Amino acid sequence: MLILMKSEATKEDILRVCQKIETMGFRAHEIPGAQRTAIGITGNQGKIDPETFATMSGVEQAIPVTKPYKLAGRDARKENSEVSVGGEIIGGRELAIIAGPCSVESWDQLITTARAVKDAGAKFLRGGAFKPRTSPYTFQGMKEEGLVLLREARAETGLKIVTEVKDVLTLSAVSQVADVIQVGARNMSNFSLLEAVGELRTPVLLKRGISATIEELLMAAEYILAKGNLSVILCERGIRTFEPATRNTLDLSAIPVVKKLSHLPIMVDPSHGVGMWEGVTAMSLAAVAAGADGIMVEVHPNPSEALSDGYQSLKPERFKDLLEKVRRVAEVVDRSVGAEVA
Amino acid sequence: MLILMKSEATKEDILRVCQKIETMGFRAHEIPGAQRTAIGITGNQGKIDPETFATMSGVEQAIPVTKPYKLAGRDARKENSEVSVGGEIIGGRELAIIAGPCSVESWDQLITTARAVKDAGAKFLRGGAFKPRTSPYTFQGMKEEGLVLLREARAETGLKIVTEVKDVLTLSAVSQVADVIQVGARNMSNFSLLEAVGELRTPVLLKRGISATIEELLMAAEYILAKGNLSVILCERGIRTFEPATRNTLDLSAIPVVKKLSHLPIMVDPSHGVGMWEGVTAMSLAAVAAGADGIMVEVHPNPSEALSDGYQSLKPERFKDLLEKVRRVAEVVDRSVGAEVA
Amino acid sequence: MLILMKSEATKEDILRVCQKIETMGFRAHEIPGAQRTAIGITGNQGKIDPETFATMSGVEQAIPVTKPYKLAGRDARKENSEVSVGGEIIGGRELAIIAGPCSVESWDQLITTARAVKDAGAKFLRGGAFKPRTSPYTFQGMKEEGLVLLREARAETGLKIVTEVKDVLTLSAVSQVADVIQVGARNMSNFSLLEAVGELRTPVLLKRGISATIEELLMAAEYILAKGNLSVILCERGIRTFEPATRNTLDLSAIPVVKKLSHLPIMVDPSHGVGMWEGVTAMSLAAVAAGADGIMVEVHPNPSEALSDGYQSLKPERFKDLLEKVRRVAEVVDRSVGAEVA
Amino acid sequence: MLILMKSEATKEDILRVCQKIETMGFRAHEIPGAQRTAIGITGNQGKIDPETFATMSGVEQAIPVTKPYKLAGRDARKENSEVSVGGEIIGGRELAIIAGPCSVESWDQLITTARAVKDAGAKFLRGGAFKPRTSPYTFQGMKEEGLVLLREARAETGLKIVTEVKDVLTLSAVSQVADVIQVGARNMSNFSLLEAVGELRTPVLLKRGISATIEELLMAAEYILAKGNLSVILCERGIRTFEPATRNTLDLSAIPVVKKLSHLPIMVDPSHGVGMWEGVTAMSLAAVAAGADGIMVEVHPNPSEALSDGYQSLKPERFKDLLEKVRRVAEVVDRSVGAEVA
Repeated sequence: MLILMKSEATKEDILRVCQKIETMGFRAHEIPGAQRTAIGITGNQGKIDPETFATMSGVEQAIPVTKPYKLAGRDARKENSEVSVGGEIIGGRELAIIAGPCSVESWDQLITTARAVKDAGAKFLRGGAFKPRTSPYTFQGMKEEGLVLLREARAETGLKIVTEVKDVLTLSAVSQVADVIQVGARNMSNFSLLEAVGELRTPVLLKRGISATIEELLMAAEYILAKGNLSVILCERGIRTFEPATRNTLDLSAIPVVKKLSHLPIMVDPSHGVGMWEGVTAMSLAAVAAGADGIMVEVHPNPSEALSDGYQSLKPERFKDLLEKVRRVAEVVDRSVGAEVA
Repeated sequence: MLILMKSEATKEDILRVCQKIETMGFRAHEIPGAQRTAIGITGNQGKIDPETFATMSGVEQAIPVTKPYKLAGRDARKENSEVSVGGEIIGGRELAIIAGPCSVESWDQLITTARAVKDAGAKFLRGGAFKPRTSPYTFQGMKEEGLVLLREARAETGLKIVTEVKDVLTLSAVSQVADVIQVGARNMSNFSLLEAVGELRTPVLLKRGISATIEELLMAAEYILAKGNLSVILCERGIRTFEPATRNTLDLSAIPVVKKLSHLPIMVDPSHGVGMWEGVTAMSLAAVAAGADGIMVEVHPNPSEALSDGYQSLKPERFKDLLEKVRRVAEVVDRSVGAEVA
Repeated sequence: MLILMKSEATKEDILRVCQKIETMGFRAHEIPGAQRTAIGITGNQGKIDPETFATMSGVEQAIPVTKPYKLAGRDARKENSEVSVGGEIIGGRELAIIAGPCSVESWDQLITTARAVKDAGAKFLRGGAFKPRTSPYTFQGMKEEGLVLLREARAETGLKIVTEVKDVLTLSAVSQVADVIQVGARNMSNFSLLEAVGELRTPVLLKRGISATIEELLMAAEYILAKGNLSVILCERGIRTFEPATRNTLDLSAIPVVKKLSHLPIMVDPSHGVGMWEGVTAMSLAAVAAGADGIMVEVHPNPSEALSDGYQSLKPERFKDLLEKVRRVAEVVDRSVGAEVA
Repeated sequence: MLILMKSEATKEDILRVCQKIETMGFRAHEIPGAQRTAIGITGNQGKIDPETFATMSGVEQAIPVTKPYKLAGRDARKENSEVSVGGEIIGGRELAIIAGPCSVESWDQLITTARAVKDAGAKFLRGGAFKPRTSPYTFQGMKEEGLVLLREARAETGLKIVTEVKDVLTLSAVSQVADVIQVGARNMSNFSLLEAVGELRTPVLLKRGISATIEELLMAAEYILAKGNLSVILCERGIRTFEPATRNTLDLSAIPVVKKLSHLPIMVDPSHGVGMWEGVTAMSLAAVAAGADGIMVEVHPNPSEALSDGYQSLKPERFKDLLEKVRRVAEVVDRSVGAEVA
């Protein structure tokens, strides 16, 4: 922490700030300047709240210089974390490919999609059973019935299941089926839910909130890590900006930033990020080129009949073409995609 | 809904869209144009999902023309709604003045503040017992103990209690004390929590999410209204923009917009909006001038000792000065503030 | 400037940074900490570019602690600046009221509006002759002919003329008529134009760019001030956010922020900020309550016939009602509005 | 254009709107609905201003359904445009690689960089002679002297020169040297400058404004095209969002969007977009994977000595490594990079 004093601060103001620092058990370092004095604080282990000083007489600004997260940061772990999902590794050399429908709608729809994405090379099946929807009047998912179908799809295909948890009340049901529990963008700051998934040992796919900074995403991960669940996978899915042409603005530069700040794997969901299927292929390749640890893509056998998000879903044959290109881009950045099923 | 066809759409494309509309039980109105054809849909009661048509051959765009909310909209109720909180009305001629500390920290802190804000003219005491915090390592509120203190402060001062619910698990405890249950910005899209408070009949203060559009705020209110709780009060508290000088950008134009679209009362929280006490007075007056139904202000007897949000808290004497000015601005816009306690 | 070193920085890294600082003629202050070392710089008069250090080995971050503007800042002048426009003061106790049509369209339209706004109490007439428009195919203003009409309107009413300069080429023509030269939002970062108006001594109304931070607005003012034109009036007119319900998001909290950082007067243009006439009255009152030094309002005798911005223009009678309320709000914040013409 | 009437609109309101449409020479199509009436307009060639109707009695909203640009749109030209720069094609199968320093600083710096980027495979040399800078107190470029050095660097290396025009006054000087005139982000809405470069026949690299929508970028291109200069290349360089970790948020989804809406080539500048050299490689590859027609990268022989933008500049050897990867990613998306010079 650096305390910047006002140019008109008195000697007493400066003394009082130094005393407060010492009272807190830290050391104060006065740096007199031409225009104003700055005071450095050392000896603190974690973050000090800037507000502690901001209201004191003569103080212009209190500037934090330490990151607020610990377990999620590179300082805690230099090498990249790898998350094991029943033997499949996310965050290693091989890219994680998650695909499937936005919502589970029926056995036919689910198993058709599951077989298709497995054939194309995906190892994870996504499908929402509990759907957080902006309107109370739209389809909210098949709920428990959807979970049953996901379990059966896994039994039949061997694909790992990625499905979203909507709230603490249904977490138990979801965690009995999910190989990876998805925490959606709207729940990224639902701290009670983060703590609850932190108590489990099931891997968590944590999506970035629609207006969350990267630091806030890492702080949300910190909530889960601090409870002992170290299997956290981050996911960029687009942020809200002024641009109306896309549903959100996919922030791919979050990938190099996260790689610099944190050891956690980061995936990209281009379907929600772009919101139109024409852009999903382009942005999937871009995500892999930018260093993402995997992609999560919406695939639907018949997009125009989908109960949700049809406009941004790929048909199975387009998804297959996409993965062939992903495989080639992956090689350029020293990554791979698991073998296509013959 | 208006379906806009591409300029190269064929007669068959147009026919297929019209047939789909008729199949859904609605009427299709073809509007042939110089460059392209548009198709209007009538006969639908609620909203049609644009995606239903967006993936059909020849379709350029599907443009919704009906609002997605019903109960929250002006079409449902022409006159303004008034919410009664144990006899005190929010949304009537008299402005609602809610004040108090960000967090309940101790009996002394709470009762000192409560008496001061009551003396100044407030009728509602705010104070957080369960605090959603960005970091798992910072003060999370006094929890149940804080609720006990709030109950005692009400017993002693008669002020109505406004306190935040953090999650579904603690809702029952909070609702036994709260006269108004606050749903915070981070929970605005926590639909399970919205439904749970919708089941109650306690008034709800619903804060706008940090990047929520006004339409999304109204849809969140719709979740509560649809469950039968009609006592919903909206609250603007600042949105996230690129401007770093303030904690958030307080969107006061949301007030005339909400007044046009909805019958629900709307209050303003300038403390979180601006994040610095020097701006709180200015923005409180501005909110009232813009037509807000009340303000919610953080007051702390000793801001530099506050455990949270000290920098944006007013001292009691500043709050008193503020209310005197609020009273005078209120008159200009045909509103009033309850009599100051002698 | 504070240089924050990485936790793994070596002694040599630290030494090299200190030597670079000394080489630049400043003093380096090493602050060793538990986790990392920080280095304070003193002795510099102005801003140092953070990039000078950001690429050096072992450096985590370079944090500027001095404001980049000088003449525009409160440090340069503690008391508020007042700008004289032919005897009318902007920035003093009396609020500046600027009103008139978006564009000059005809003599009838202009003089009708001018007389109406003067009757209501305005002392400044706005009207665009050169209009920057997003589309090359829409009305671009009456240009020189419009300037002639503005000059005549001043001769007939005595109102001071506020009109926009579009580019350096037409600045000479505009400056021969304008009592206040308006630099529009799109030109806020047109540094060549800022320098050109800086060479003049005509007062300048500088609008905030649509995505400019307050610091950038002050830096744009600095360009004008640095050339010797000290008569700069800032103008908040709405920033671009994700909210679609209003044309822009009027950032009224910019008023207390500017008042804290700078001595320059700041006005508000609620017409462009809100983009719908129903909101203009509300936001005008809010602006005055928040401490603005004046308002600039679009008024048109027949908004639905206006060639531009009709939807956000007030009719003269509504403007008159508005000013009566403005007068009353002004009193609350110790300001006044010039006497209404009987 | 679709006019949506209010639910309480009277028959007279509807009639008046229809009459106004007919008066304008177009056809009105009434679409009566359950809740409200809509009125379609056909027969118009270009865009109608929504404001024409928005203020009429009974009108809820006027919704434009035609794109405001003509020459820049896909409707005007189905196939992609290719821009020839002295024989080098931008927008064809081969990617355009533009590289060089942010600012021209000296002959040594320029020629060292020029040779290095040519060796790596670039065919275009960037370098700013006139620099628009936020602060009047920072380095503004070598101006005319810089242009002379650029001309000499071309003579010696054969690289095409890309350099920025700052204003209309220096356009003539710039256009005598530039093979491609760059219009920077801050000038994207400087319509006078756009018209001036539109009068020339030199290719123009038009950067997206820092908060410009894609539609506004296309409208800015329209200004240039409408004057007869058809050699326009668009450039995404990051937009302003709430995220502080990167200088801007590079919006790569703009690439598939532009490719859908327009025939113009689009390049990406990852250096300004990300603002830190670690991210430049990642985002360059991502841009190519997403379908960009080329990249523009800042390269500096000694970034920590650069007078501007050092932190985001690549060293020549890193740039060479980057181009090798770019070449491989390009193949995946059926593009190529010109042969590396042996």
